[in-house]
Amino acid sequence: MINIRIVCVGNLKEKYWIDASREYEKRLQKFCKLNVIELTEQNKYQEINKILEIEGKEILTNLSDKNFLLDINGEQFSSEQLAKQITNLSQCYSTLTFVIGGSYGVSEEVKNKLKNKISFGKITLPHNIARIVLLEQIYRAFMINSGGKYHK
Amino acid sequence: MINIRIVCVGNLKEKYWIDASREYEKRLQKFCKLNVIELTEQNKYQEINKILEIEGKEILTNLSDKNFLLDINGEQFSSEQLAKQITNLSQCYSTLTFVIGGSYGVSEEVKNKLKNKISFGKITLPHNIARIVLLEQIYRAFMINSGGKYHK
Repeated sequence: MINIRIVCVGNLKEKYWIDASREYEKRLQKFCKLNVIELTEQNKYQEINKILEIEGKEILTNLSDKNFLLDINGEQFSSEQLAKQITNLSQCYSTLTFVIGGSYGVSEEVKNKLKNKISFGKITLPHNIARIVLLEQIYRAFMINSGGKYHK
Repeated sequence: MINIRIVCVGNLKEKYWIDASREYEKRLQKFCKLNVIELTEQNKYQEINKILEIEGKEILTNLSDKNFLLDINGEQFSSEQLAKQITNLSQCYSTLTFVIGGSYGVSEEVKNKLKNKISFGKITLPHNIARIVLLEQIYRAFMINSGGKYHK
């Protein structure tokens, strides 16, 4: 069973996001070993670059052998293409890590190190919705790969 | 104050989607007169074309003078571009209607009649998440237009 890690900056605050996230985490148990790593959002500093630098260092210590950064300017995949990617990569890697930045995005260092950038479209999503969409897309990918009826 | 209508097929079932939707509906009260019209999802028929035909007729009776269809193959806008569209259109139209199809999408008739198609990216979103993302993007658009700090 493949390990999927979601490294994200900041926690979910509202109960409805927490519950939505839990639902997909529960559904994913059937398909993968899921690990959601919530890094502390920096709020001690005024300067955005300083915030991104500290958050970035934390992100970089939590990577695995294959990593993806959610980035508005990244490559767009259809859900079917993402499903195929997960199938193919699971042949070569034991852990796939997906990184979602904080309110201000991620540092240039993180952007440079994480070459695989996935975009969910041109719109700016808040990090809480991005996290739910990511979980749903991973679940959808497994449902596509298992031939389930979920994906029409 | 502009009227925003969201015409969608099927209701939100899970409490977390209902609560998330309510939160954005509440926030939007400040900026527009929002009307969410939930049409009945057809489940009497086996045949998908029949379902789409009946749902489609319902959609077409709920349009206004300016309509957008959420369509995976539609035009992608950034959040800033969507904000600008809303500003510009509010000069000419009193009501903007956004249509979200049901589990099987929408009929060809609806696709043909609604020329303005917006895509939130190449991924397939379930209709409940699409609805929350739409509400958030409309809220984000108003925040961008009002110069608020929400959009970074």
